[in-house]
Amino acid sequence: MDSLDCVAIVGVGLIGGSVGLALRQRGLAETVVGIGRRQSTLRAARRVGAVTRTTQDLAAGVARADLVLVCVPIGSIVEQVRRVAEHARPGTLITDAGSTKAEIVRALDRPLARGCRFVGSHPLAGSEKAGPQHARADLFQGRLVVLTPTRRSRPGDVERLERFWSALGAEVVRMTAAEHDRAVAWTSHLPHAAAVALAAVVPGRYLPLAGTGLEDTSRLAGGSPELWTQIFAANRRHVAAALRRFERQIQALRAAVEQENSSRLKRILSRAKTKRDAVGS
Amino acid sequence: MDSLDCVAIVGVGLIGGSVGLALRQRGLAETVVGIGRRQSTLRAARRVGAVTRTTQDLAAGVARADLVLVCVPIGSIVEQVRRVAEHARPGTLITDAGSTKAEIVRALDRPLARGCRFVGSHPLAGSEKAGPQHARADLFQGRLVVLTPTRRSRPGDVERLERFWSALGAEVVRMTAAEHDRAVAWTSHLPHAAAVALAAVVPGRYLPLAGTGLEDTSRLAGGSPELWTQIFAANRRHVAAALRRFERQIQALRAAVEQENSSRLKRILSRAKTKRDAVGS
Repeated sequence: MDSLDCVAIVGVGLIGGSVGLALRQRGLAETVVGIGRRQSTLRAARRVGAVTRTTQDLAAGVARADLVLVCVPIGSIVEQVRRVAEHARPGTLITDAGSTKAEIVRALDRPLARGCRFVGSHPLAGSEKAGPQHARADLFQGRLVVLTPTRRSRPGDVERLERFWSALGAEVVRMTAAEHDRAVAWTSHLPHAAAVALAAVVPGRYLPLAGTGLEDTSRLAGGSPELWTQIFAANRRHVAAALRRFERQIQALRAAVEQENSSRLKRILSRAKTKRDAVGS
Repeated sequence: MDSLDCVAIVGVGLIGGSVGLALRQRGLAETVVGIGRRQSTLRAARRVGAVTRTTQDLAAGVARADLVLVCVPIGSIVEQVRRVAEHARPGTLITDAGSTKAEIVRALDRPLARGCRFVGSHPLAGSEKAGPQHARADLFQGRLVVLTPTRRSRPGDVERLERFWSALGAEVVRMTAAEHDRAVAWTSHLPHAAAVALAAVVPGRYLPLAGTGLEDTSRLAGGSPELWTQIFAANRRHVAAALRRFERQIQALRAAVEQENSSRLKRILSRAKTKRDAVGS
């Protein structure tokens, strides 16, 4: 990717901060402007070196940007993208980092103010930790970024975002927003729900006996309840379908255990192992 | 712990191999005899330095041992401990590393051959990886080991095992076998079942989109189907109860998602986060 003069990042939490850090460490942008509401977050983003300057004034922050990333919770993305379009230079390309795409892309797949254009991104990277203090320049290294262009998207915009995320070390794939949301219901939202349900039911008095197994399996439950309430709501139909299928599998496991049906139990365990071994570390 | 002349380990897989490696690296035993059925496993145990010598002949292997650890799959522990007692020196202390305890302790809580005595151990350490090639000298460092003595156990035997596991870096706690089995149904067997159900239901075509979340949450599903079929069977009643509770929690989550009940959803997520944050990394 050619170096950019100025990238503006609205929301410098873990994802926005990591984009800024990666841009700066790889020398991909002259200026990285961090835009946010809370001074403490902006200060933290400056301290870790994720941005070159910060502002609470969105209009001023995006005024000179070549590219704007909106890295705010999904419930605020549509509104923030529209505000960015009203203040950015005419024709500026805007993207996001939201974990669900259909609602957002539907709302933004039309001419925005000043001829600005939106194409959705979802970097499949993150952590249960929040805030720029946990930002990492290598957060996207080797991870997948899904772009969700529509029939209205300009090929040049999509290619530009492809180069952008590739330059941060990611592998980029394209999908429709609908395909994306169905897929992540299984690969991201269902695992989150399983971790949450697990952490919720383990009796507190047994927590001192937790080993690495419970630690790994419940790790996602440490994520932000606010963010995840929004994510589940935004992908309601697919998440509910995945949860229903998961319930039935748990019931099948329980039936095999209760009926001492070892061959059935081993079949489920073997099928799961084959699938899991295909995932990697 | 005073150094032991000779420790015999029946079954030099991940756990047995790691005990041997830790004993040798810490200079806690002169001789560590690895006993097993498969030459390839014994060879691997020698190669990684987990044992000083190996044999397929259990009688010869335990003949001079001061302490014998039986680290075989739980379905074979009772039989192997009885065989060890028939060939060990009179009065030898024998322990195991089985993940369930009630059935095993019930069967072995009586005079064994030649005055040998059994006290149950369960090191809460491990991995989804099997075999001595994955053994680590620090596998027990900072982890918990549960001892499950009974009213018939000699205090001196229990203290000796406490010193033994402490010398390998573990923190040792005592519980009844029944308490242990109830607790690990929640902290170990339920997480395993959740990981298995998750891996089993994720459609294969979406696996390329797996991120760290799915990786962590499903990791346990990579474990051995044979071993886990035995574990679930041995702890049937408690595992079924935990699965039933987990099912209900998943149903509650799904209902909150389907009914767009954000406050209910956030309550579940927040409760889970509080519990998860208490677990540690």
